[in-house]
Amino acid sequence: MREKISQPQREQRINQKGTIFWFTGVSDSGKTTLTTELEKQLFDRNSLTYLLDGDSIRGGLNSDLTFSPEDRCENIRRVGEVARLFADAGFFVIVAFISPFRKDRDRVRNLMSPGRFIEVFVDCPLSVCEKRDPKGMYKKARAGIIPEFTGISSPYEPPKSPEIHLHTDQHTIEVCVKQVMDFFQEI
Amino acid sequence: MREKISQPQREQRINQKGTIFWFTGVSDSGKTTLTTELEKQLFDRNSLTYLLDGDSIRGGLNSDLTFSPEDRCENIRRVGEVARLFADAGFFVIVAFISPFRKDRDRVRNLMSPGRFIEVFVDCPLSVCEKRDPKGMYKKARAGIIPEFTGISSPYEPPKSPEIHLHTDQHTIEVCVKQVMDFFQEI
Repeated sequence: MREKISQPQREQRINQKGTIFWFTGVSDSGKTTLTTELEKQLFDRNSLTYLLDGDSIRGGLNSDLTFSPEDRCENIRRVGEVARLFADAGFFVIVAFISPFRKDRDRVRNLMSPGRFIEVFVDCPLSVCEKRDPKGMYKKARAGIIPEFTGISSPYEPPKSPEIHLHTDQHTIEVCVKQVMDFFQEI
Repeated sequence: MREKISQPQREQRINQKGTIFWFTGVSDSGKTTLTTELEKQLFDRNSLTYLLDGDSIRGGLNSDLTFSPEDRCENIRRVGEVARLFADAGFFVIVAFISPFRKDRDRVRNLMSPGRFIEVFVDCPLSVCEKRDPKGMYKKARAGIIPEFTGISSPYEPPKSPEIHLHTDQHTIEVCVKQVMDFFQEI
């Protein structure tokens, strides 16, 4: 019987090494802006790339999940498994989720071979994010209208040694995206 | 702010129209053999294609699910959502699951635009599959060792009007795969 097409065969064909770029950070830290721009730049240079974020996942695959700690854990587990499939297909998979818990992110990392999970910490002080608050989410969280809000009423555990550490309060989007793109030159 | 890369942009780039080829049929009807060969032929002609089956899904994304009717339903729901994401990325997604319930398959169909969900009925009489039985599953199912086995102790609802209807008891693998590949010429 025929063998299935393998990851190495696919990667050789498209000349890419399937890799997950996992963006983690609190609300309004800049994940969406950064990953949208990153996807654009990768697309422009002809890379095969796909973005997994709340828009693509929360309304579909994970529409059955709430924001309770257990469901957040399951949310990240499933996103990790889907990202793994896309990486297996050879994609540069860009993932943008708050993903507040270290153990959940590390579990995804452990699904992947070394070098194929790049943790990108989108670091911005909570006070700055709370000032940005374009959708008034922090205000609602402070008022108790939104429960279990990361940074306010639910913990955020920052990465201990992320491959890429971005400071969105200190640098422009352009500079931060360049920091990630520079990483692509190395892999 | 930048727009995210859209499905039309991606499809134009890779010159493909993201489509799900959904293979349904009972155990040992020939789904794995057919889809492995189909994937190979698509890969050989430079198509971007990915295979979702028990091997890639049951051990990872859906490792929390059993074979109860409810979990089978959730299994197919999640597979459908993942297939939709790959199709959104422009891929020819080949799905091979027994997927015994019509409403579960139709739910996936309804996620997709017309023409982007191709139901492939891998049709083989149960008596023939039971004779094949390379892993002795039917024997175990008849003995009651495997519960809720499709065709024996759990129902299989055949498609009413599949886009492609294969008879694996009457035709060779080569002929059946050609029948699917001919469909590709049309889309």
